[in-house]
Amino acid sequence: MSLELWYWPEIPGRGEFIRLFCAAGEIDYVDMARVENADALVEHMHALEGMRPFAPPYIVDGDVVIGQTPLILQYLSDREGLGSGEMEVDLKLFQLQMDIADFVQEVHSVHHPIASELHYADQMAEAFDRAQNFRANRLPKYLIHFDNALAANGGPFSLGQQWSHVDTSLFQVMEGLDYMFPNYMAAMQGSWPYLEGLQGAVPEIDGLADYLASEERIEFNENGIFRHYEELDEQ
Amino acid sequence: MSLELWYWPEIPGRGEFIRLFCAAGEIDYVDMARVENADALVEHMHALEGMRPFAPPYIVDGDVVIGQTPLILQYLSDREGLGSGEMEVDLKLFQLQMDIADFVQEVHSVHHPIASELHYADQMAEAFDRAQNFRANRLPKYLIHFDNALAANGGPFSLGQQWSHVDTSLFQVMEGLDYMFPNYMAAMQGSWPYLEGLQGAVPEIDGLADYLASEERIEFNENGIFRHYEELDEQ
Repeated sequence: MSLELWYWPEIPGRGEFIRLFCAAGEIDYVDMARVENADALVEHMHALEGMRPFAPPYIVDGDVVIGQTPLILQYLSDREGLGSGEMEVDLKLFQLQMDIADFVQEVHSVHHPIASELHYADQMAEAFDRAQNFRANRLPKYLIHFDNALAANGGPFSLGQQWSHVDTSLFQVMEGLDYMFPNYMAAMQGSWPYLEGLQGAVPEIDGLADYLASEERIEFNENGIFRHYEELDEQ
Repeated sequence: MSLELWYWPEIPGRGEFIRLFCAAGEIDYVDMARVENADALVEHMHALEGMRPFAPPYIVDGDVVIGQTPLILQYLSDREGLGSGEMEVDLKLFQLQMDIADFVQEVHSVHHPIASELHYADQMAEAFDRAQNFRANRLPKYLIHFDNALAANGGPFSLGQQWSHVDTSLFQVMEGLDYMFPNYMAAMQGSWPYLEGLQGAVPEIDGLADYLASEERIEFNENGIFRHYEELDEQ
């Protein structure tokens, strides 16, 4: 039985964090809703019983059916022996991956401050206010936190010379922010040197270069988490 | 060395999820900032090095220093043998605990839709809109999800007759929602029968009854996550 990933087929979203890690770790999987389609995902998810995932992405690996991006990444990292080998350190990587998930949630709320069920056009004024506050406070607070975490082992990766699931995720975060806030990120260049170093180092990981250059890599777009709306990037 | 919990001393917040679990599991710990004060917490957190927690709560257990409420609960549950004993099931409990953390984040955003750095009074109009959407969509979606999870093993607890960290957390969620939205929750009574059953069953857990009746239990208040603002509970 192959490892199955279930996620929306046309956005990077949270699924891309899994796709990147699998590419870097050369882990075989089937991206089910891209082989089939979004309807198949909805149908599959609704047919799950018991303690099922709240939302995609989720994986099916034999008897294991789990959602939550950080948990999936930690599980696969354990399965493949791609962690640090030390429990105390693996816990810290897991904690960082959960911090990344919290940040991703806050990024989504920038363009959907009132309700995820409403369109962006219906909450633009509020999104404008939230984006200003986000750039002034939460965004730098998180990036400094992640930069310090990378600095702990001297870079370029969270474990020094060895990459982990945290690094592929932080790469995606930085790429996403460059797409979402090009003016802001250009103005802030040099503020988080380890993260910028990581952005250069991650694409060199064996397996990832091929993936990033392939058609499998889904471009950022305005249906995902990191969206570019010019008015939200005004300085 | 005792287990140390570091969290804000005067709010239930995310720390209460840890306090409840420790009380139910009769796990000894020192609630450091309540023995000392909030300044001691800030000082302690800033002195941490390397991959440190992003925010309280965090625990110190010998060499292990970790934040993120779900990770702390899973770690302590493992340490104390309070899980299911099966890896596949423990993963599902962990996933549910992470769903709870996501929900708690959304609850906080109800009264702080524009920025956590601003006061509620500065974002009341937006909070009113967000609360309406939250009650109509996200709140029932999450509670039905949690109710179904409890139904999977027939109740009253997530593992049937055996309680887990998920149950003490869902208890706190329900108590918090009753405090935050008394009108809405009264109107919806009967909609999530397993969660309502859980609310009655959890206080019967040995160790927890004493805690809930003690002065250690921190009441909900308007500095925490579950806040009561009458205007946000209008039907």
